[in-house]
Formats: sequence, structure tokens, C-alpha cells
Amino acid sequence: MKMHFQKVTIIGVGLMGGSLALAIKKGELAGTVLGVDQQPHQLEKAVARGAIDAYTCEPAEGVQGADLVVLATPVGMFETIIRQVAPRLSSGCIVTDVGSTKGALVGQIESMLPGTAFFVGGHPIAGKEKSGIEAASMDLFKGARCILTPTSRTNAQALEKIKNLWKEVGSEEVTMEPMDHDRVLAAISHLPHMAAYALVNTTLDLLNRDGTLVSCSGGGFKDFTRIAASSPEMWRDICLLNGENILATLEAYETVLGRIKQYIQNHNGGGLYQEFERAKKLREGLS
Amino acid sequence: MKMHFQKVTIIGVGLMGGSLALAIKKGELAGTVLGVDQQPHQLEKAVARGAIDAYTCEPAEGVQGADLVVLATPVGMFETIIRQVAPRLSSGCIVTDVGSTKGALVGQIESMLPGTAFFVGGHPIAGKEKSGIEAASMDLFKGARCILTPTSRTNAQALEKIKNLWKEVGSEEVTMEPMDHDRVLAAISHLPHMAAYALVNTTLDLLNRDGTLVSCSGGGFKDFTRIAASSPEMWRDICLLNGENILATLEAYETVLGRIKQYIQNHNGGGLYQEFERAKKLREGLS
Repeated sequence: MKMHFQKVTIIGVGLMGGSLALAIKKGELAGTVLGVDQQPHQLEKAVARGAIDAYTCEPAEGVQGADLVVLATPVGMFETIIRQVAPRLSSGCIVTDVGSTKGALVGQIESMLPGTAFFVGGHPIAGKEKSGIEAASMDLFKGARCILTPTSRTNAQALEKIKNLWKEVGSEEVTMEPMDHDRVLAAISHLPHMAAYALVNTTLDLLNRDGTLVSCSGGGFKDFTRIAASSPEMWRDICLLNGENILATLEAYETVLGRIKQYIQNHNGGGLYQEFERAKKLREGLS
Repeated sequence: MKMHFQKVTIIGVGLMGGSLALAIKKGELAGTVLGVDQQPHQLEKAVARGAIDAYTCEPAEGVQGADLVVLATPVGMFETIIRQVAPRLSSGCIVTDVGSTKGALVGQIESMLPGTAFFVGGHPIAGKEKSGIEAASMDLFKGARCILTPTSRTNAQALEKIKNLWKEVGSEEVTMEPMDHDRVLAAISHLPHMAAYALVNTTLDLLNRDGTLVSCSGGGFKDFTRIAASSPEMWRDICLLNGENILATLEAYETVLGRIKQYIQNHNGGGLYQEFERAKKLREGLS
């Protein structure tokens, strides 16, 4: 008897929502999984893939009778959705999310929910550069970390249930303050995405006269810029919601780039060697 | 009868030199392959792996009787090596290299060689983040492009022989002016490496209070920074020899990063979306 939830409603059935739906179905963790999305063709595909049992395009309709609601749209839509669904949530319903920013958003969602519903912020550190239900996989969260961001207002039982859910789909759970989450993620995820997007566009600008030469690029360029194919909508929202932290990391990045420029200008081979050696050691430590 | 060369001398038996040696042995493209390196233990390993038949630590000794000499050390050593070996080169000997910078270096090497030896600049766009003979592979150049940089002084027969060599080891040859090579490579290879090195060090700076959190990073960070584990010595030399072009690309990169910063500061979601969408399209075009 593994079933943890009667009815799970997943709002946003793309890469993340679709993968969680597939993992929940495979693990038999819910009686029913209902999908909500603005795009009916995504929902049809999700049914065909066995990720969801039924669907609706109306969030307020979708959450009725659910004991778990998962927000899996771009984070910029969370506020609107919570406003729509809050009055229709069943008593005791747990609301969680898989969004890439937390920070102030967590307190905002908590204050918008009725006292009979419980919010637990979540962020599985998994994904790929492809988006949509086609890219979803029931193994996406296997071996990944999932950051949970409980606050003083978080219901202990709800937290326990969400911890169990992530454990069941193969993730290792880590707990963090919402504000710490955003600071850390800015450094290890948001900045790298900015750097990759900017790099691809720089190369495009530099080689626009002879664009075919990009095809000469080695595996390095391709690996390095793979994440630049991630969803522009998702990353726009992350930038708007975690702007302050991302700006701070971009400034730190510019400082290091400026240092490298100065070493080059001054023909400072020792400085360059040290800079590269330090990065090599850290990177090798990650395996 | 495939043997193209009587004796090939490879100076610098690391990842690139070792891989070429392995590919030459496998393809039976030379009677003898002799390795030259400052590190005897690398040479011993190269013999054990069947990459070279014999070795010496003295370049001037190593090139005697060779009809092909390949420079495969960090580019910063080329000038010194050419000075040492020039008086000992056999008449008709072809000298080539696998270095990551060309530009002025090509003319410099040409003018240092005796009239009876022929230089052909080469740069196989292949490699990995690991260095040394241990990382060498006879398949490293398979399916890769190899840029050759002939000049008005290049001997046509020597160029043809080097083209054939790269074809035999599985590479597709592309011809470029030495100065164009450096400009293009700055954009598609040197800038990405600077960006990756700087990113890893920025993350380290930002998280130095809680360094273990780097382990939360997803596959994106790891892929993105894989190239930051490349040889610091090699990249120091590339920066010193192609400094002007690299500085230009770093400035272009800072311009794009500055634009993203401004979009975030102004909460310009449309600008961010456009920037990311443009990068996504180019990146997806690379497959």
C-alpha cells in the first residue's frame, strides 16, 4: 500500500510537471493524476504517455478534490494561479512547486492560501535543455537533489509528506531557507545560464559575417553552451524573480573576467596560470 | 603500401601528440615514430601504450633523420624548440604542429627554418579536458576538423602530404589564413574557455563560505564547466599568443552580459526573452 495521495493535480505539464507525473504513476503514489495546462495538445500527449489520467485547462476546476497540487509552470505564473485556485482548494490540501526561485515568493504564496491548505516550497535540481512533455522522463529526478524550503509557517506533516514524495521518485532532499536557496541557486545555476546565453550570442555577433565557421567548434563549445537551449520563458521569469541575486553574481563574474583581461593585457603568464589552475582544481573536485 | 613517412618525430607526447602518435602507428603511416618530451615517465608510458617506438629528451637529437616533425607542446615553447632543431633538420623535412594559435607565429617559424625544410601550420579541433599521454586515444581526431594554415611560402607538396596525414587519421581538413584562424578560434574556443574558467572561480568566490553547496549543482553546471579542467599551461600560452583577439572577444562578451544586466535592472522581460530566444535558436542549430 504505497498510495500517498488520492488525487494529485499538476499545473503545467511540461518537462518538470510531466516527469513528476510519470514518476508518480510509475510509483503508484496517487489514485489519480490530473493535468492542467494552457495547451490542450500537451495534455493530450501527456495522456498518451500515461503521465496523467485526465485533464482540464482551468486551474480552479483542476484542483477540486485534490489532496496535492503541484505548481510546475514558469514561476512568473505562480501568483496568478494561486489567486485562481485558492478558494477551491480542499481542506488539508498540500500545495507544492518545482520552481527555480523561492525567496519572497514563498511568503507570498503562504499568505495567499487559506489556513486549511499547506504550502511546501520545492525545487528539484534536475532538468535538461529540452522543454515540453515530449522531453519528460520518469527517471528525471533519480539521483538528483531536491531542495525544500520550509518556513516557520510550514505544517510539519505536510513537509514530511513532500519529503517522502521526493524520496519515492529517487531524489535526495536538502532543506534550505528560501532566501539562501535563491542566493545559492544564483551562483550555481542562474549565473551559468546567463553566461551560456551571453556566450552563444557573443559568438553569433563575432562571426555573423561567416556564421558557418561556428561548425568548426569543438565539443567544448557545444557542451559549454548546451544549457543555452533551455526555455527562454522559464529563464525570463527566473531573472525577474531573482534579479537582485543574479545581478550580484553577474558583477562578481565581470570582476573575474576583468582580472583575466588585465593579466592578458599585462602579459602576466603567472596570473593566468594561477587563475586557470584554481578553476581546474575546483572543477575536478566535482568529478 | 600506406607508409607516408620514414621517421616521424613528435615533440610533446601528451594528449594531442600521443593521440597522433597512436593514430599514425595504427594506420601504419610511418616506419618509425620517435617521441620527444621533457618528462621521461610520459615517454615510458607512450612506449608502453605503443604510441612511440623510441624516445629522447633532446629535441635536436630527436629530429635527426626525420622526414616529419610534429610540434605538440604548449605553443609557448615552439620558438625555443624551432631554434634548437632548425640546424639538425634533414633536407626535405616537413615540420607541422597541432597548436591552438597561429597568426604571427606561422611567419616566425617559417623564417627560422632553413630553406630545405617546409612548415605547414595545423590545428586539429579535437581535445578533451584531460591532459597527458594517459588521456591520449587513437580515435581523438576521427570526425574532427583540422584547420591548416598555408601561406604564400608553403610548399605545395608538403601541404598535400599533411592534408593526407589528417585524412588518414579520420579528420576533415579546412584551410584558413593564419590571422583568420586566430580570430575565429578566439570566438569559438578561446572565449568559451575564458568564460568557463571565470565561471568556476566566480562560483568558488561566491560560495566560499559554504563550498559544499556546489555539490547541489545540476548537470548544467558540470557540463558548462567541464572545459575549465583543461591544461592551465596550454591556456596560459594561448592567452599570451592570441591576446589581442581574446581581449576583443572578452569585450564583446562583457557587452552582452551588460545588456542582460540592464534588462534585469529594468525588469525588461521582453528584452530577456529575446536575448535567450536568439541564443536558443543558434544553439539548437548546432544540434
